[in-house]
Amino acid sequence: MSEQFFPNVQKIKFEGAESTNPFAFRYYDENRIVLGKTMKEHLRFAACYWHNFCSTGFDIFGEGTFDRPWIQPVGDQLALAEQKAKAAFEFFEKLGVPYFCFHDTDIAPEGATLKESHANVNHMADILEAEMARTGVQLLWGTANLFSNKRFSAGGATNPNPEVFAYGAAQVKHAMEVTHRLGGQNYVLWGGREGYDSLLNTDLRQESEQYARFLKMVVEHKHKIGFKGTLLIEPKPQEPTKHQYDYDTATVAGFLHKHGLQDEVKVNIEGNHATLAGHSFHHEIAVACAEGIMGSIDANRGDMQNGWDTDQYPNDVAECTLVMYEILKSGGFKTGGLNFDTKMRRQSCERDDIFHGHIGGMDTMAKSLLNAAKLIEDAPLADFVDARYAGWKQGLGKDIFDGKHSLESLSQMVLAEDTNPVSVSGRQEMLENIVNRYV
Amino acid sequence: MSEQFFPNVQKIKFEGAESTNPFAFRYYDENRIVLGKTMKEHLRFAACYWHNFCSTGFDIFGEGTFDRPWIQPVGDQLALAEQKAKAAFEFFEKLGVPYFCFHDTDIAPEGATLKESHANVNHMADILEAEMARTGVQLLWGTANLFSNKRFSAGGATNPNPEVFAYGAAQVKHAMEVTHRLGGQNYVLWGGREGYDSLLNTDLRQESEQYARFLKMVVEHKHKIGFKGTLLIEPKPQEPTKHQYDYDTATVAGFLHKHGLQDEVKVNIEGNHATLAGHSFHHEIAVACAEGIMGSIDANRGDMQNGWDTDQYPNDVAECTLVMYEILKSGGFKTGGLNFDTKMRRQSCERDDIFHGHIGGMDTMAKSLLNAAKLIEDAPLADFVDARYAGWKQGLGKDIFDGKHSLESLSQMVLAEDTNPVSVSGRQEMLENIVNRYV
Amino acid sequence: MSEQFFPNVQKIKFEGAESTNPFAFRYYDENRIVLGKTMKEHLRFAACYWHNFCSTGFDIFGEGTFDRPWIQPVGDQLALAEQKAKAAFEFFEKLGVPYFCFHDTDIAPEGATLKESHANVNHMADILEAEMARTGVQLLWGTANLFSNKRFSAGGATNPNPEVFAYGAAQVKHAMEVTHRLGGQNYVLWGGREGYDSLLNTDLRQESEQYARFLKMVVEHKHKIGFKGTLLIEPKPQEPTKHQYDYDTATVAGFLHKHGLQDEVKVNIEGNHATLAGHSFHHEIAVACAEGIMGSIDANRGDMQNGWDTDQYPNDVAECTLVMYEILKSGGFKTGGLNFDTKMRRQSCERDDIFHGHIGGMDTMAKSLLNAAKLIEDAPLADFVDARYAGWKQGLGKDIFDGKHSLESLSQMVLAEDTNPVSVSGRQEMLENIVNRYV
Amino acid sequence: MSEQFFPNVQKIKFEGAESTNPFAFRYYDENRIVLGKTMKEHLRFAACYWHNFCSTGFDIFGEGTFDRPWIQPVGDQLALAEQKAKAAFEFFEKLGVPYFCFHDTDIAPEGATLKESHANVNHMADILEAEMARTGVQLLWGTANLFSNKRFSAGGATNPNPEVFAYGAAQVKHAMEVTHRLGGQNYVLWGGREGYDSLLNTDLRQESEQYARFLKMVVEHKHKIGFKGTLLIEPKPQEPTKHQYDYDTATVAGFLHKHGLQDEVKVNIEGNHATLAGHSFHHEIAVACAEGIMGSIDANRGDMQNGWDTDQYPNDVAECTLVMYEILKSGGFKTGGLNFDTKMRRQSCERDDIFHGHIGGMDTMAKSLLNAAKLIEDAPLADFVDARYAGWKQGLGKDIFDGKHSLESLSQMVLAEDTNPVSVSGRQEMLENIVNRYV
Repeated sequence: MSEQFFPNVQKIKFEGAESTNPFAFRYYDENRIVLGKTMKEHLRFAACYWHNFCSTGFDIFGEGTFDRPWIQPVGDQLALAEQKAKAAFEFFEKLGVPYFCFHDTDIAPEGATLKESHANVNHMADILEAEMARTGVQLLWGTANLFSNKRFSAGGATNPNPEVFAYGAAQVKHAMEVTHRLGGQNYVLWGGREGYDSLLNTDLRQESEQYARFLKMVVEHKHKIGFKGTLLIEPKPQEPTKHQYDYDTATVAGFLHKHGLQDEVKVNIEGNHATLAGHSFHHEIAVACAEGIMGSIDANRGDMQNGWDTDQYPNDVAECTLVMYEILKSGGFKTGGLNFDTKMRRQSCERDDIFHGHIGGMDTMAKSLLNAAKLIEDAPLADFVDARYAGWKQGLGKDIFDGKHSLESLSQMVLAEDTNPVSVSGRQEMLENIVNRYV
Repeated sequence: MSEQFFPNVQKIKFEGAESTNPFAFRYYDENRIVLGKTMKEHLRFAACYWHNFCSTGFDIFGEGTFDRPWIQPVGDQLALAEQKAKAAFEFFEKLGVPYFCFHDTDIAPEGATLKESHANVNHMADILEAEMARTGVQLLWGTANLFSNKRFSAGGATNPNPEVFAYGAAQVKHAMEVTHRLGGQNYVLWGGREGYDSLLNTDLRQESEQYARFLKMVVEHKHKIGFKGTLLIEPKPQEPTKHQYDYDTATVAGFLHKHGLQDEVKVNIEGNHATLAGHSFHHEIAVACAEGIMGSIDANRGDMQNGWDTDQYPNDVAECTLVMYEILKSGGFKTGGLNFDTKMRRQSCERDDIFHGHIGGMDTMAKSLLNAAKLIEDAPLADFVDARYAGWKQGLGKDIFDGKHSLESLSQMVLAEDTNPVSVSGRQEMLENIVNRYV
Repeated sequence: MSEQFFPNVQKIKFEGAESTNPFAFRYYDENRIVLGKTMKEHLRFAACYWHNFCSTGFDIFGEGTFDRPWIQPVGDQLALAEQKAKAAFEFFEKLGVPYFCFHDTDIAPEGATLKESHANVNHMADILEAEMARTGVQLLWGTANLFSNKRFSAGGATNPNPEVFAYGAAQVKHAMEVTHRLGGQNYVLWGGREGYDSLLNTDLRQESEQYARFLKMVVEHKHKIGFKGTLLIEPKPQEPTKHQYDYDTATVAGFLHKHGLQDEVKVNIEGNHATLAGHSFHHEIAVACAEGIMGSIDANRGDMQNGWDTDQYPNDVAECTLVMYEILKSGGFKTGGLNFDTKMRRQSCERDDIFHGHIGGMDTMAKSLLNAAKLIEDAPLADFVDARYAGWKQGLGKDIFDGKHSLESLSQMVLAEDTNPVSVSGRQEMLENIVNRYV
Repeated sequence: MSEQFFPNVQKIKFEGAESTNPFAFRYYDENRIVLGKTMKEHLRFAACYWHNFCSTGFDIFGEGTFDRPWIQPVGDQLALAEQKAKAAFEFFEKLGVPYFCFHDTDIAPEGATLKESHANVNHMADILEAEMARTGVQLLWGTANLFSNKRFSAGGATNPNPEVFAYGAAQVKHAMEVTHRLGGQNYVLWGGREGYDSLLNTDLRQESEQYARFLKMVVEHKHKIGFKGTLLIEPKPQEPTKHQYDYDTATVAGFLHKHGLQDEVKVNIEGNHATLAGHSFHHEIAVACAEGIMGSIDANRGDMQNGWDTDQYPNDVAECTLVMYEILKSGGFKTGGLNFDTKMRRQSCERDDIFHGHIGGMDTMAKSLLNAAKLIEDAPLADFVDARYAGWKQGLGKDIFDGKHSLESLSQMVLAEDTNPVSVSGRQEMLENIVNRYV
C-alpha cells in the first residue's frame, strides 16, 4: 500500500488488561479460546462502511467536521469511491476486524439511471473483492439503501407509488446478488422510510400488505439465486419517520408469524434502536432468542438523555455482559456477528478517532464475552431460573401444558383443595449482586 | 332510593353547546341521530367500578383524599360492598351511561378462600342484577383481577408457580361466568403482572407459552359456556411491572397470529397505555383497525410530561376526532364501547367531582363523534388517501399483488424503462389544516 | 416583480371560518379588533428565513427533497443569496406576515474570512432593506449563527478555545448591528453548541463563567450602540449537543439572577424546545411570565412520540389558547411576537407547501387569540384562582408575607388553635371542562 | 436484644472481592484508607427509615407483599412504632451503616392534633436516642413529611391555604429541632407536593413567593436554635405532582440565587430524580459541584425504561465511579453522605432481601470510590481538561475574564488578524476508553 490514510496507526494488538496504550486491545485477544471457540469466532466483529467512510460528521445543525479526503461534492465520484475503499480496507486491516458491512450506495456513487448505479456497484465490487482477498477481511452483510434518495421519501416497499416499490425491488435484487458474490453471510433489510410521518395520508393495512409482498419476493429471490446467508430485518421504532413498521423485535416477530415467514427471516438488533423503542438492549436480545429469530447485532449504544439515534460505541460492560450471556445461552452467533453501527461524536474530528471508538467497543464486547462465559460456566442465573420454574416440568404444571386441564378442572381443583399459593421472593437484588460479581 | 350518595346532583341532561351549566352535556345528546344511529348507540359509554368506587385517591406518596364512606378498613365488608353498589348505580343512572364495567374484586370483598370469594361475588351479582334491572344500565364488560393480591406478585398466567396459574384460571372462569350471567358484551384480560421486573429471574419463552396456554383455555371456556361476547386483551407496555408482555397492539396482534387466536381475541385499547408505549392514541386505534382486531376502548388520556398511568379524562377533541374517525371508518363498535378507565386527580376530593370528569369526557367523545361523522361524509381524507394509493388498484401495483412479479421481473422492468419515479408531496400540513376545519 | 417563485399563490386573504379555500385564512383577520388591538398587533407574526429558504429538506438519513433553485452547491453564492431574498420577500408579502427573522448566515454566504462574511452580510442587508421598504415587512429579530460552522463544534461562547469565543463575539457584534440597522425589535441568542457532549472533557464551572462573560459583553454592546430592542435567550435542553446550558426557562431565569442580568435579558420560548425539556409549551410560557422574563415565542410544535426537534407547525388550538391566555394576562407582547420556527415535513416537497404550513399555523394562533380573549373577558379561570389564593391577601397569609411570622410563631398558633386545615377540591376536571367551552 | 427481627442475618463483614457469600461485603472495608481517609469517612452511608420500615411493598395496583409485623392497620400505633425502631436499629447495626435518616411521620404515628403528633415524635426520639447510644449509629438527616397527609394535597409551603403553610411550618420547626437534638448533620426539604397538577388552578408567581418565604423562615429558625447542620433541598421534577418546583439542580440553584439563599442551602441529589428530570446522575452531581451547592446524595437508580421513581439500589459501578469522582474532586462530603433512598422490588418479599439490596448498593459505591480515587491519583481526565482550557489561564482568555475586552475589541482583533480557529478533537471516545480502564 503506497499511500496511507491512517499513517499514524499500526495494526492494533492485544496487550492485556494492564496496557495503557490507547491503540491496543486490553481484552480482545482474537485467538484466545473461550468455551471451546476463539474470541474471533465468538464475536465475529464487523466495521461498517457508512459511518466510518461515508459521513463527514455533519448533523442537522451544522456542517461536517471530519477529515475525509475521499468525500468531495464535486469531482470524479467513482475515483473517490476507489480511494474510499482503500481507506476502508486499510482501516479494517489495522483494526483487525474479520468482517465489514455495507449499503450499495456506500461503496459506489449513484448514477443517473439504475443501470449506471448497478455498473458503479459492480465496478466497486471488483475492487472490494480484491481488497478482501488481499486482507482476508470478509463480508458479514450487505444491504440496499432505500431511504436516502428522495424517491424513497415516502418509503420503498411501502411507497404509495408502485414504481418506487419496483425501483426498490431492483435495487435489493442487485445488492443481494453482490452480497452473494462477495460471500456475504447475511442480507439485511432496514426500513428507514418504511413507516409513516402522518396517519392522515397513510393506509396502514395497504402498506403492511405491500411490505409482506416485498419480503416474500426477497425470500423467493434468495432461494432462486442460492444465497445461503440469513435474511435479517432490523427493527427501529422511529427516525427518520415518525413511526417505523419494524418497531421492535416483538412487532417483527408477529409480522413474520402473520405471514408465515418466521423460519425465513431473523432480526438484526441494534442497541440504540432498542432504547429508542422503550426497551433495554438486553430485552430485545432476550425476546429475539425466546422467539428463535436472533440473527445478528448492531453493537452500539444510545444516550439515555437524548431521544434520537446517537449510534455511540458500546462501553457498558455490565449491560453487554447480559447481551453476550443471552447470545451464548442460545448457542452463539451462527451467520450473524457484532457489527459496529457506530459513529464518532462530531467533535471527534481527528481521523484516528475512529480507532479509539472501535477499540473501546471491541474491548467492551470482548470483556463482556469473558464475563458471560463465566456466567454460563458457573450458572448461578440458570440454576436460579430452573429452580423457579421447576413446577412446570412435572405434576400440575406439566399437566397444564399437556392439555389435561381446562378452566373448569383447575377451578374444581382450587376449590376442592383450597389452593392458596404463597409468594416466594424473586430475589432480584440478590441476583443483581451476583451478576455484578461477574462484571 | 332512600339514602342518596350524590344528593346535590340531578340526572345530567343535554343542554346544548351554549350551556354553561357544569352539570349538563353540551354535545352528548343520546338520541341524536348521527350517520343512521343514535349517539348512544355509537358511543356505548361505560363508567368503571374501580376508579370511581374502589379508590380513595391515595397515591404512592400519600393517603386517600376522597370521600368514600363505603370504603372502610374494618367493618362488614359485604355490607359495605352493597352500599358501594348503591352508590355506583345512583351514579351510573344520574350520569346516563348505558354501560358499566367491573373486576370481580371491585364488586365484592375477597374471602379467606376462593370459595368464599366466589360466594361474595355471587351475592353481589344478585344485587347488581337487580340494580341493572331497575336502572336499565347494562354491562359492557367484566374481568378478573389477577394483579392486586400478593399471590399474583409474579404474575397470574405467567407465574413461575403453576398453582398461581390454577388460581387465576379459577378466578377467570368465575368472572367470565358472572359476566355472562349479567349479559356482559365482552370479557377483558388485562395482564398487569403478566410481564417481568427483571430478566435475571425470568424465562421469557416459558412465560410466553404459559400465557398462550392460558388464553386458549379461556377461549375454550367461552365457547363451552356459550358466552357470545368478545374476548379482549388490553395492551399496556409497563407499570406495575417493568415490562408487560401485551406491550402494544402490534405485539398483541403478533402473539395472536403466532398462536392462531387472531379470530378469537380482539384488543381493548387504552389511550394512556398507547402513549406510555411510545405511540399516539390514534396510532393504536389505527393499528387495531388495520389488523382487524379493534374491540373496545378505555377512553382516557395520559399526561405527556409524566411517565406513568395518570388515567385522566379525555379532553382533546382534536385527537379523539381522529380516534372516532378510525372507529367509524372500520364500521363502528360492535360489542365494544367507550369505557372511562379514568380517575380524579387526588386534589379533586369532592364527591361530585366525578361527575365533572365524566361529563367532560363524554362531551369530548360526543363532539369528536360529530366531527368524525362529518369527516366521513365529506371524505376529504379518504379521497386523498384513495388517490394516493390508486396505483395499487390497477396496472403495475395490481400485478405485484397478483403475484405476476418477482424481484427479477421488476428489475428488468426498471432497467428497461429507466423508471425513475418522482416524489409527490405528502401534503401533511394541508391535511392537518383540513382536519382542523372539522375540529 | 418580474420573475415569481410562487406563481401559483396569490396574496392570502381572510375568508372566514366557513372557507374551504386552502390558500385563505379562516381566523386570521389582521385588522379585526380584539381587546382593543388588531389581531396583527397582538400576534406579531414572523416567518423565518432559515427553514423556509435555507434548507433543502435533507435529514440525517437522506438528501433534500425541496425545490429550492436558489440553493446550489456550486455557483455564485452571493447571486444565489439575492435570489433567495427575492423568494423570501415574495413569500412574506403573499403570506401577509408583518415580520421576519434571520441568522447572519441565512441571508449571506460565509466568506473565507470574517471580513468577507461581514461584507456579504452588509451587501445583503442593503437588499433586505430595500425589500423591507418595498413590502413593509419588518424585522422581528436577528441573530448570529454560532453553531453550524465547524469552528463552533465545541461551542461559541463556551468553547475551550478563547479564539473561538472572540470569533463568535465578532460575529454577534456585527449581527446585532445589522439587526439594529434594519430596525429589528429584538436580538436573539440561541446556544446550539453551548453545552456539552461529554462531561469527561468539560469544565462546567469554567464554561458557565465564559457564558456569563459573553452575555455581559453583549448587553454592554447593546447599550453602546443604542439598540433599544430586547435581548432574548432561547432555551433548549439538548440537540445538537447532549446537554445545552440554556436547558429551560427556569434554568435561564436562574442564570440571569445569578449574574444580575434579569432586567437585561428575556427569553424566546419555543414550543418544541419546551416539550423536549419535559415541559408543556404552556408551562414554559407560564414560568416566563411568572419570572417577568417573557419575551417572544417560536411558535411550533414537536411530535410527542419523537425525541428530536421536529419543528412542526402549531395546530393544537386547545394548547395555544392557553399559551395566548398567559400572554394576554401578562399584558401581551411588547417587542416580541410569534415567529414560525417551523419546517415542512420532508415529504412536503412542493414549493407551495410552505403556504399550507404557515396558513395553518397562523390560523391556529389567531383562533387561539380569539379564544384567549374571551377567557380574559369572562375570567372563569382568573376568578377561580383569585378565590383560591384569597387567604394570602389578608389575615394570616398577609401577615406571613409581611414578615410578622416565624416558624416559632406559626407553630404556637397551630398548637394553640388546633389548626387542622381541611382540603378543598382543586376542581381540575371542572376547570378543564370550562376551558373546553372556550376552545 | 431479646427478640430479633432478622434472626438469620449476622453482622455483615468485609470478605474481599472473591467472596461469594451473599451476606458479605466484597469492596466495602470500612477502615480501609483511601486518599487519607477511611472508606467509612468517605462514603458516610445511611439507611432510610421509610422504605425499609414504613412500607409494605404495596404499589398503585396491588397490596403489600412484605413481611413487616410492626405495620398493622389497627392496634396500638405507638407500641408498633417502638417495635419498628427496634427492627430498624437491629438492621442498621447488622448492616454496619454509620447513619440513618427519617421523616417525622416515619418514626411516630400522627396524632389527632399536631400536639399529639409532637408528643409521639418526642416519645420516639427518646427511644431513638437510646438506640443510637447503644449502637453508635448516627443521624445523617431528618425531615418533615409535608406530602402524605391529605391536608397537604395541594402542597405545604405552596398551598393556597395559609393555614396549611402554618401547619407545615410547625411541623418543620419540630422536625428540625428533633434532628438537632439527635445530632443530625443535615436537615432536608423535599417538596413532594410543592408543585402543580394543573396550571389552570395555579398561580406560579404566588406559590414561588410562598416557597421563598417559607425557606427563609427555615433558615432563620436554623440559626435561632443553633443548628449547625446543612439545609438541603432535594430536587425532583415530578411525581406525585405533575410538576415540582425543585425540578432539578439548576432550577434550585437559580431559585437560591434569586432569593439570596445560595450560601444557606445546598442540594440533596437523588439518582432517580436526576434521570426523571432528563439528566444523568453524573450531570446533576457535576452541576451541583460547579454551582458550589453539592450537599448530600440519595444513592439510588431508576429504571431507564420506566417513567416513575423506582428507587432501586445503585448497581452501576461505571456511573457511580464518575459520581464519586466529582465528589472527590470537589473535596468529598462535608456534612452530607450517601443515603440509600431505595426500596425492594415488590416481589422481593422476604425480610432478608433488604440486606441483599443494601449490600449490593454499598459495594457498588465502595468499588466506585476505589475507582474514583485512582482516577484522582492518576488524573488522566483532569490533565486532559486542564490542557483543553489552558487558553483561558493566560493571554487572550485571561484578558477576556479580566475585563480587557469588549465585543468591539474582539471584533477588531479577529478582523485584523484573520483569526480562524481550527477545531481540535474532543477525544470523547478515547476518554471513555480511559475511564473504562478504571471501572
